[in-house]
Amino acid sequence: MPHAPGSILERRHAAVRATLTERGLQAAIIVSLPNITWLTNFVGSSAVVVIDHERVTFITDSRYVTAVQDVQRGSGACPGFSLCVVEGSYDATLASVLASAGYTRVGYEAAHLTVARFHWLERTLANPGPVPTFVELGNGIEVARSVKDEYELATLRTAGQMLADVTRTVLGLPRAGMSERELALQIDVTIRRAGFEKPAFETIVASGPNAALPHARATDRTLGEGDLVVLDFGGVYDSYCVDLTRTVVVGPVSARTREVYEAVRRAHDAAVEATRPGASRFDIDAAARDVLAAAGMGAAFGHGTGHGLGLEVHEEPRISRRTAQVDASREAVAPGMVFTIEPGAYFPGWGGVRIEDDVLVTEFGVDVLTQVTTELIAV
Amino acid sequence: MPHAPGSILERRHAAVRATLTERGLQAAIIVSLPNITWLTNFVGSSAVVVIDHERVTFITDSRYVTAVQDVQRGSGACPGFSLCVVEGSYDATLASVLASAGYTRVGYEAAHLTVARFHWLERTLANPGPVPTFVELGNGIEVARSVKDEYELATLRTAGQMLADVTRTVLGLPRAGMSERELALQIDVTIRRAGFEKPAFETIVASGPNAALPHARATDRTLGEGDLVVLDFGGVYDSYCVDLTRTVVVGPVSARTREVYEAVRRAHDAAVEATRPGASRFDIDAAARDVLAAAGMGAAFGHGTGHGLGLEVHEEPRISRRTAQVDASREAVAPGMVFTIEPGAYFPGWGGVRIEDDVLVTEFGVDVLTQVTTELIAV
Repeated sequence: MPHAPGSILERRHAAVRATLTERGLQAAIIVSLPNITWLTNFVGSSAVVVIDHERVTFITDSRYVTAVQDVQRGSGACPGFSLCVVEGSYDATLASVLASAGYTRVGYEAAHLTVARFHWLERTLANPGPVPTFVELGNGIEVARSVKDEYELATLRTAGQMLADVTRTVLGLPRAGMSERELALQIDVTIRRAGFEKPAFETIVASGPNAALPHARATDRTLGEGDLVVLDFGGVYDSYCVDLTRTVVVGPVSARTREVYEAVRRAHDAAVEATRPGASRFDIDAAARDVLAAAGMGAAFGHGTGHGLGLEVHEEPRISRRTAQVDASREAVAPGMVFTIEPGAYFPGWGGVRIEDDVLVTEFGVDVLTQVTTELIAV
Repeated sequence: MPHAPGSILERRHAAVRATLTERGLQAAIIVSLPNITWLTNFVGSSAVVVIDHERVTFITDSRYVTAVQDVQRGSGACPGFSLCVVEGSYDATLASVLASAGYTRVGYEAAHLTVARFHWLERTLANPGPVPTFVELGNGIEVARSVKDEYELATLRTAGQMLADVTRTVLGLPRAGMSERELALQIDVTIRRAGFEKPAFETIVASGPNAALPHARATDRTLGEGDLVVLDFGGVYDSYCVDLTRTVVVGPVSARTREVYEAVRRAHDAAVEATRPGASRFDIDAAARDVLAAAGMGAAFGHGTGHGLGLEVHEEPRISRRTAQVDASREAVAPGMVFTIEPGAYFPGWGGVRIEDDVLVTEFGVDVLTQVTTELIAV
């Protein structure tokens, strides 16, 4: 569990309550687990929160009662907390919380609540009624979460340093003849021995032609001479995620390998340099993309340049290509945002390169949280 | 990726198409990733499927194109497959697939599609229209998935044997003075070295008072004399999940420890014996619960007796207490169902015991897929 102090949780609650006031709502139903963690410090597989102007009603089942009570006795206790243990089902319990509070206008997370749960809730409350007016909430909490507070920044700075240390060990692990799967296992052991709770996602070890797949899974293929090997891994520390990629080469470095690697490295550096408060996230993406295009590798870079990091390993902001549909007010990056910079170049049948670091937008510019060499390493 | 043969995929498609016919639908939108895997053999983080009476239109983004094409060239190729690469966004691509096919009645997975996506789809199709009639589908695919076919049974039998072998190693790992976290790490390494793709969930090592928490996470607590230690772990093999729990004791066994352990063991055995084709899943639960109640430990067993296993680690059927709301036709277990039997007894402040195996309902009775001793082991 994270242990954000009560004063910080209060500030987060205030942000949600400002939305309630603005939208004329008495309460909001929160079903997204990362959003629930952000509001309450609780980590578990099942919970629903109803936040109104006074209370944070926390619905969970008997499995989690002891854990929740422990959190509430510590320094990370959630202010205004009211525990409600599930009877029957989560949704039946939620319906009775809403009915007994007598709310008439309630917001809900439309991007997280399923149609089936929403319809069930409406039908259940209709009998005997009255049914409150339900109002779709956008991604306001996700946007608020994209700017990290001092508790989160301290956690992410520590996690970034830990991941850089892990990387120094990891860069010494690959050997010709080792399978991708075994190397991924050794990386995961290194991550966990370093003090991370767990890997942040399934570690990618993609060698030779597999390196051309941006989302490869480790296979039984063994590393061979001349292979590029993409190593993409991360860790969860106190519930916060960090994420890093390095690409190494097995044996002698060909001219083409050097050329592709250095182009990706320049793209990575250009995107880091373009990162500062007020910069457009599309321009940060373009900074990387333009370098690869100038090197004749524009078509080899299919994915976005980066993604936010926090309680989720992929969150706001998205550092991606400019698209027609985006609201301009959601374009600039702000101090406190933490995201990856991870350009790549992929050539089917040949291989690929990706270089990824985690950066923090500061008041004056950018801090790289994962300080470890980006030089091409031959193993 | 699993590699269910095309003939088996055809049978699965036929089951969905029978529902289309029955409900007067031209197509169904499938957004649940495990359901997509079951229909296509594809494993990945993003895809949407539209299945109609002729085709399986598979929508994914550029990251997965190479992987999908590889699957389609192999023996696990999906019949009627039509690849559609995302342009813009998944939902925009889905909208244009629906519009260009001109469907007028389309089913969707209400338990998986979010309200926001559903409303966006309706609004987008309304311009210029016409909007098809959207019909909520229940959990028909999940129910179909609960009865495993021969491909799945072969996979799960192998996985169960592998997990039993892992358990024999795991039972030799705990030592007084070892931390829960280190033990969990060694269990995970054992799981992966045995040939599983990955652990099926976050391995639970819960010692001493932590053993009283059914969903404990491994901590830095070290194992001490007299501790009960709950070890709950699983593996994913060819995308299929198996799951097992054993509880060991550190050092000498007290009379109370022996008493609790043997009561849970008798409850486990009684539930396994109650498992046969046609048995009610509520009666299987009651078989375990009655044993613990007779031992004066009824209140110490708060959770259900078991859950289905397959592409997900928790799926249908649920072996749980009888509740008023359940449709009687969904009560009997059938040959081909695979689920866990995992009674436990938990005493806050003292500790707890859980014993879990995976069973298959056969035509004549039950097979335990995870054959390994349930004797109390002192380490």
